[in-house]
Parts: sequence; structure tokens; C-alpha cells
Amino acid sequence: MTHSRVSEPFSMVIFGATGDLAKRKLFPALFSLYMNNLLPDAFRIVGVGRTQRTHEQFRQAVRDSVEQFARIKVTDEASWQQFIKNFTYAIADVKNPEGYSEIKSLIEGFESHHDVPTNRLFYLAIAPDLFATVSHNIKVNGLANTKGYKRLIIEKPIGHDYASAKEIDEQIKRTFSEKEIYRIDHYLGKEMVQNINVIRFANSIFEPLWNHHYIECVQITASETVGVEERAAYYDHAGALRDMVQNHLLQMLMMVCMEPPSRLKTEAIHDEKIKVLRSLRQYSEAEVGKYVVRGQYQAGVLNGKDTPAYRDEKNVDSASQTETFVAAKLFVDNLRWAGVPFYVRTGKRMGAKATEIVIQFKEMPKNLYFNKNNDLGPNLLVITINPDEGIHMVLNTKKPGSDNQIIPIAMEFCNNCEQGTPEAYESLIHDAIIGDQTFFTHWEEVSLAWEFIDPIRRAWDQNLYPLDFYESGSWGPESAHRLLAEEGHQWWPVTKERQHRIIKANEMITT
Amino acid sequence: MTHSRVSEPFSMVIFGATGDLAKRKLFPALFSLYMNNLLPDAFRIVGVGRTQRTHEQFRQAVRDSVEQFARIKVTDEASWQQFIKNFTYAIADVKNPEGYSEIKSLIEGFESHHDVPTNRLFYLAIAPDLFATVSHNIKVNGLANTKGYKRLIIEKPIGHDYASAKEIDEQIKRTFSEKEIYRIDHYLGKEMVQNINVIRFANSIFEPLWNHHYIECVQITASETVGVEERAAYYDHAGALRDMVQNHLLQMLMMVCMEPPSRLKTEAIHDEKIKVLRSLRQYSEAEVGKYVVRGQYQAGVLNGKDTPAYRDEKNVDSASQTETFVAAKLFVDNLRWAGVPFYVRTGKRMGAKATEIVIQFKEMPKNLYFNKNNDLGPNLLVITINPDEGIHMVLNTKKPGSDNQIIPIAMEFCNNCEQGTPEAYESLIHDAIIGDQTFFTHWEEVSLAWEFIDPIRRAWDQNLYPLDFYESGSWGPESAHRLLAEEGHQWWPVTKERQHRIIKANEMITT
Repeated sequence: MTHSRVSEPFSMVIFGATGDLAKRKLFPALFSLYMNNLLPDAFRIVGVGRTQRTHEQFRQAVRDSVEQFARIKVTDEASWQQFIKNFTYAIADVKNPEGYSEIKSLIEGFESHHDVPTNRLFYLAIAPDLFATVSHNIKVNGLANTKGYKRLIIEKPIGHDYASAKEIDEQIKRTFSEKEIYRIDHYLGKEMVQNINVIRFANSIFEPLWNHHYIECVQITASETVGVEERAAYYDHAGALRDMVQNHLLQMLMMVCMEPPSRLKTEAIHDEKIKVLRSLRQYSEAEVGKYVVRGQYQAGVLNGKDTPAYRDEKNVDSASQTETFVAAKLFVDNLRWAGVPFYVRTGKRMGAKATEIVIQFKEMPKNLYFNKNNDLGPNLLVITINPDEGIHMVLNTKKPGSDNQIIPIAMEFCNNCEQGTPEAYESLIHDAIIGDQTFFTHWEEVSLAWEFIDPIRRAWDQNLYPLDFYESGSWGPESAHRLLAEEGHQWWPVTKERQHRIIKANEMITT
Repeated sequence: MTHSRVSEPFSMVIFGATGDLAKRKLFPALFSLYMNNLLPDAFRIVGVGRTQRTHEQFRQAVRDSVEQFARIKVTDEASWQQFIKNFTYAIADVKNPEGYSEIKSLIEGFESHHDVPTNRLFYLAIAPDLFATVSHNIKVNGLANTKGYKRLIIEKPIGHDYASAKEIDEQIKRTFSEKEIYRIDHYLGKEMVQNINVIRFANSIFEPLWNHHYIECVQITASETVGVEERAAYYDHAGALRDMVQNHLLQMLMMVCMEPPSRLKTEAIHDEKIKVLRSLRQYSEAEVGKYVVRGQYQAGVLNGKDTPAYRDEKNVDSASQTETFVAAKLFVDNLRWAGVPFYVRTGKRMGAKATEIVIQFKEMPKNLYFNKNNDLGPNLLVITINPDEGIHMVLNTKKPGSDNQIIPIAMEFCNNCEQGTPEAYESLIHDAIIGDQTFFTHWEEVSLAWEFIDPIRRAWDQNLYPLDFYESGSWGPESAHRLLAEEGHQWWPVTKERQHRIIKANEMITT
């Protein structure tokens, strides 16, 4: 995290340049970085796809993408020309080892023309089953022989269990070392996820409270209102456990739980995150039913519109056992977190779109003062990650004008209200270019996460525990609520719904 | 604090009913209480003054006062008539023991007509040098022989030092016991001052932090932009130390510092407040110069207008040595607060009107993480009391879009933004009617406060330490800043000014 903000000249090869990720995320992110002066003067983008395109056609596709998806708009044609002239296109069948000559000549042309170091990034915006092949072909074509750096950027999901992830990892490591592999978990690119470290370690009021003495439980929610959409073919095999829990939810858990690192350096932070996974209580297939529930959405009404059941979605097996919802009660068995439940949940077709973390502090003693009737709510620190970015604190104060009535109030800080904040991909692509691996996933995180997930997956694949159903637009099956009720807890409404309740409570007594 | 919210029938005699306090505060407060259904169906107000008035003239004066000063407006003539019919007027020379018959007959008429208990409140909205005489005359006229309760409401400043306060107290205690005396310090009637207990004892996140382990210092400011105005004749003899520090500032200090009371009862809370004063480090005349500074305003510019020096104000001695500003460094020498400086300041003609308390938490260790360059600001909890009512917290977060830059942000809760909150006098008059002494000042608080103040006053009266001067519109003399600088601290700008700075810092990086 002490890297220079503007990098050396580089080439970036984007495999899958005609695909959805490139269009929606990568081109807009590159443009924002450029407009914020975070790219060097000299760089080359080589888009690689299977379809025939001229450089000009490709550049027009990039323009279309930026205009449709970028948070910064094209307002100045001269800047745009400066930006887009760095983009070139190569047609290639990436499975064919002989198909890389065009890519190579575009890169080498750039490097010799500008007399710059051979710094090369390979962004694999393609299906994971091609990762091994492409890595291999990069090597055999000599693209990996750089005098500067070479870096591989890949995205989850890497494998579908520990064994398959391990196999892919071994294959790509024949070309790239761990320090050259940038595994994107785009949740780690989100401003407020990166802010967790700062909230914890730059505020002296939170540090003494951040442990089992003062924290009652932690709740992590990543909910969507959309259904399976176009991803059904993939999703019906993957399910929410692999698609969301294994990566995003465990990553957020690690950020909340990690011990203070010895330094704010990549290695020190990865070490601490890995220690969290090592302390994460593993569930055997026989224990899964007690701690993890799965659900699948049924028909319902969302925003006033009828929505179909998962099994009625296009490309979904009509007897599908795939979970579209997971809730789990996790424990981090170390000194800091002894006994504190971490509740995580994720689902499609839920009541609201929200990614947030709730730190629920212990309640005041029940026999004391204001809490005599046990009617006092606990203090909450809420880190909202998406779509709102910010911090909420729920405190208790005197109801204005009352003798002694206490009401909950929310204090809030909005991170993205005044100005949009960078997209996760902006931040992550920039980090990859400047060589900062902090917010990428280390192989050891991936492997430990799979080792935690695999027994749950196996238990479900054997149908040892029921698949529960929930109405679309609800907050998951009844079993997800029981999971917390057993401990005397309840899911907090997500911020939007909670805010409403708090503001209502904040009315004055007039009678 | 477990009293019923609506009281028994009562009579209230307001001595000084044609005066400023009655007009600006008491009548409006009574009207608000009435409109909020906090007065009983049967009550009688007897206004007492020296000038001849009919009941009707008095009622018109009350109407004028309510229309000019009440936070609730008269919208319904029928309600107004229901309210005002309870008001009567008696002319009396309060120094003359024989002048009370009219008062007596108005009260007794009410009591016998309604067949209600003889509950009587005597509000002395008159000069303190009359307190003893009026108390005596209440007694000799038999007004104090009640079958219900009798209560005396008096207001600061009670005396000008310990000896004079003690003398007044002994005299009024010939008629009223300590439990019958309601000494108003109107700061204790303010919503946010009453909220301090709730903030502290109803929020589990603050309790563990509320001590010398986590708090670096506390700052209490009560600043005014006005000069001495019409009060010069009184003020030039009193000065800021007696007018503000002895009562209001020490009361706020007690609320911040007190140990948790065993119960939320008046006696338990008074006990804990008194313990704070007992632990307050006393300064001998020889020590005063080290811990307390005094200042007097000079000419300056406030809100674009030239304002005169204090010595040039009407009714002020042109060589006056009276302080219009006091700043002090106080210590509460007990286990909880060992070594924590409490900085208090008050002044006229200062940069802004603000009453607020800043809890400054200790900084993160300097060698650690984000604070390596010692450029991280501390966390602050700011309780704003007047004119804005609310809570601010200043925390550190990641500057959006930056790699690793930390900026201070403010989270805020506004107590009086959506709806006006009750005036201090509403709350206090209501408490006196229902017999809740919690937010009134106990004699022991008054006496201990004077014992702390007297040596400072004596040192200044002997001119042992200089009177410093400050420009009107500034934040006091240089010596007030040195007082903190010696400890490596600085006065935090009041909320309005601080907010501005924080919002400016909260801009995104775009270059």
C-alpha cells in the first residue's frame, strides 16, 4: 500500500474482450482511471476475441461500453482520442497455441516503439475452464518472457471445490508465481470493504470494543432482488454457497475479524486474513444442519411485479435442488471472538438489494437504570457497502420532551452521497497495474475457503438436510430466522428498512 | 424520575410577574405545558407585581408574552380561554408583611372553590436579595401552612460567594426545607444536558470508554456573541466566573463526570454529582494563575458590525476589571478521571454562540499503521446543547478513491431539527409541579461550587493575575489557548466551524 499511484508503461491483454465483463466493467474502469490521471502516458490494451473485428470496430465497442456504463462521461473528444488510441484488437482462438502471434506482435510493437520495459498484464475475462490452457499458451508463445513484470488477473469462481481449484492453481502456476497472480474478488474492491481496516485501526474508540467482551454478534448480509437472470446455466450448477459464500461473504468476515496486522502491507494483511479462516469453526457433514440453511425462491411479488419460482426460470431444471439462498451461523474460535456468532446470509429475490455488515454490541445490564424493563435496543455499528456506502450507528437517546423515555436514533455518514466513488474494478485494475496485491485473494484464502465449504456442499448434495423454500420478496425461509432465534437474536432489517423505523420512533410527545 | 406526568391541582404564585423572566420564559412555558396536556384541569396562577393591574390587563400581558415568545402558537381561541382563565393578578409590595392578603385570598378562593389540596408553588422571579424577605413573609402570612405541598422555586445567582449564599440559604430554610426548594440552573433543563445521562448509561459502547484510559481531555464551551446588553449594572459586579462558571459550567462538568448512580433517582444522582465536586481539584489563590485565565472584550467586528469594547458599554465602569471571559483547566482527582484535563470556557462577544461538550478520545499509538506520521486526528464525541441540539461523532475513514489516505468525517444526529424541543423552563416548571428535583441544584452543589470559586475570585479581586484582553469576535485571549497548548491540546472549533472543515476535507481525489 505504499506503491506509487501512477505506474510504469504496460501492456494489458484482455482475453474475452467482446464479453460482458469487459463491456460492463473493464472498459469503463480503464476510462475512469485514465480520466483521473491514474494511467501512465504510454500503455497498450490488446483486446482478444474469437470474432473478427478491426481496431476501429473494437474502439467503437469500447466507446459504446463507456457511454453506457462508465461513471465518468466522455465530454471532451480530444481526451477520448488520447485514450482510445491505446486500444488494439487481435482475433485469436485462445485454445490454439498458434493463435497468439497477433497478440505478441501488438505487444512487442508497442514495447519497441516506446522503448519501454516489457510489463505485461493478462486479464482472463473468460470461463475458468480456459485458465489453464491460456496460461499454458502464454508461456509457449514466449509472452511470459518479460524483462519487466508479468501478471495474471483472474476472477472467481476458481473451481467448484477444493480439488478442482487446486488443479487450476497448479496449472496456472506453471506460468505465473503466486506473487504474479491477481485473483479478483470484486467485493474487496468496494470502497467500504476497504474502509473496514480504516474504521477498525484508525479510530481509537472502536479498537477497545472490537472483541467478544463488547460485541454480541455480527451480521453480514448480501441480498439481491434479481433472480437468476441470464446466468441460469451456470448458476443452477453452482448455487449460492459457491457463488457468494465461499468468496464474498467469507472475505467480508475476514476483514471484520482479522487481528491488527503488524504492518499495513500485503503479506501482513494476508497473514491475518488467513489466520481467521484457520480459526473458523469447521462443520462436518453431520453438523451442517445445525449451522447452515439453504433455500430456494418460490414465486412472489417484488416491487409490485409477479416473479416466477426459481424452478420456473428459463434454463433451470424444473426439479432443481440448487440453493438460491444461504444463511449460516459461523464461529471464529480464537481469543478475540470466542462465543460471538457471525451470521451470514445471501440470497436472490429478497426484499431489498443490500450488502451490509452489522456489528451488534452487547446490551446494557438488564437490571440497570434505563434497561430495567429490558426494553432498550443494543448499539449497532452498520457498515453499508452497497448500494449505499456509509456508516450508521444506532444509539439510544432521550426522547425529546419526555421525562425518561429512551429511543433509538441513527447517526450516519454517507460515503457516496456527494460524489460517486470509484467502482470496485477501477480500484482493482489500478492495484494490479501498480502491483499492489492487498485486495486480491491469496491462494491460501481460496483453498481454506473451499475446505470450509466442501463438507456443506457434500451434505447438501446427499440431501442430508432439507432445501427450504421462501417466497420471492421475503427475507428467506423460516429456518434462517430460527438460526438466530435459537441464540436470542434476530436479523436486523437492512438499513433502508431500519431507518424508517427509527425515524418514526423519533417523534415528539405532544399528548 | 418515576413521577406521574400530570400533576395534582396546584396554585403557583409568581413573584415578579411583570418582569422580564416571567414574560420571556415562564408564561410561554406554562402555555406549552398546557397545550401538551401536562397541566392538571384545575390550577391557579397568581401573578404578583408592584404595579396596579386588573386581572384582564394581566391576562393580556400573558397573551402578548405567549404570542411573542412561545414556541407553540395560539391557534384556537377556546383553548386559550380555558388556559388564561386560571391566571389572576395581585398587587403587592413584597417587602411589606401585610401586603400578602390579596395573594392569600386568591389562592384560598381557588382551593375552596375546587375543593383541592393546598398545593402551593412560590416562584421567586425577583432579585435574590429579596429571597429571604419573601420567604419570611410567606411564612408569617400563613401561606406556608399547606395540607398538600409547598415548594419554592428560585434562580441563580444565589449569593455572590459562599458566605452570602449560605446566609440566603439559612434564611429561606426557615420556611422551606431542602426538599421543598427548587433551585433552577436552566442549563439543567436543556434537553441535551438531560440527555448526557442517557448517552452515558443507555449505550453500551460508551460506558467502557468513559474514563482516563480512553479519554484524552474534555472541553466544555458556553460562548455568546452578545455583549453585556441591559444587564451591565448587574454584570459589572458579577463577572463571568460567577455568572457562568460557578453554576452552568460546573453543572455540565458534573453531568459528564459523575459515576453511574445506584438508581435513577434524585437523591442517587445528587449524591454522585456532589462527589464530583468533592473530587474537583481546588486551586489556592497562589495556584489560580496556572489554571484559570480571565479576559475582557475589546472592540471588534461581529457579523460585519463594529462592536464596542466592554469598558465603553453603557453602565460599565470605564476602568472595569470585570471579566467577560473565563477559561480554566480543571481536574477531577478520582480513579475514573485521573490526569484528564477538563477545559471549560465561557465568554461574551465571541466568534459564535454555542454551548457544547467535546469528549476527545486518546489518539491511536503513533507508531502504528495509519498514524505513522502522527497525522491522524483523534475521535471526538460532541454533545451540542445550544443552539443546535445533537450529537456529533468525528471518526476517521478512508478518503473515497484514495489508496490509503485517511480523512476525518462527522456523523451527526440532530435532536431539534424535525421539531422544536421543549424549552428548559418548560421542563423545569413541569418537574417542579410534579415534584421531581433531579434537574435542580442541591444546596450542597451550590455550596461546594462556591468553595471552589471563592479563591479564584479573591485572587482576581487582589489582581494577583492579569486581566487579559481579547478582540470581540475572537475566541478569547491568547492565554486561553496557551492553557491547552501546554498540555499539547487545542480548543476544537465549535461544531459549525468544525463541520465546514470536515466537509472540505471530504472531497474526492480527481487528479
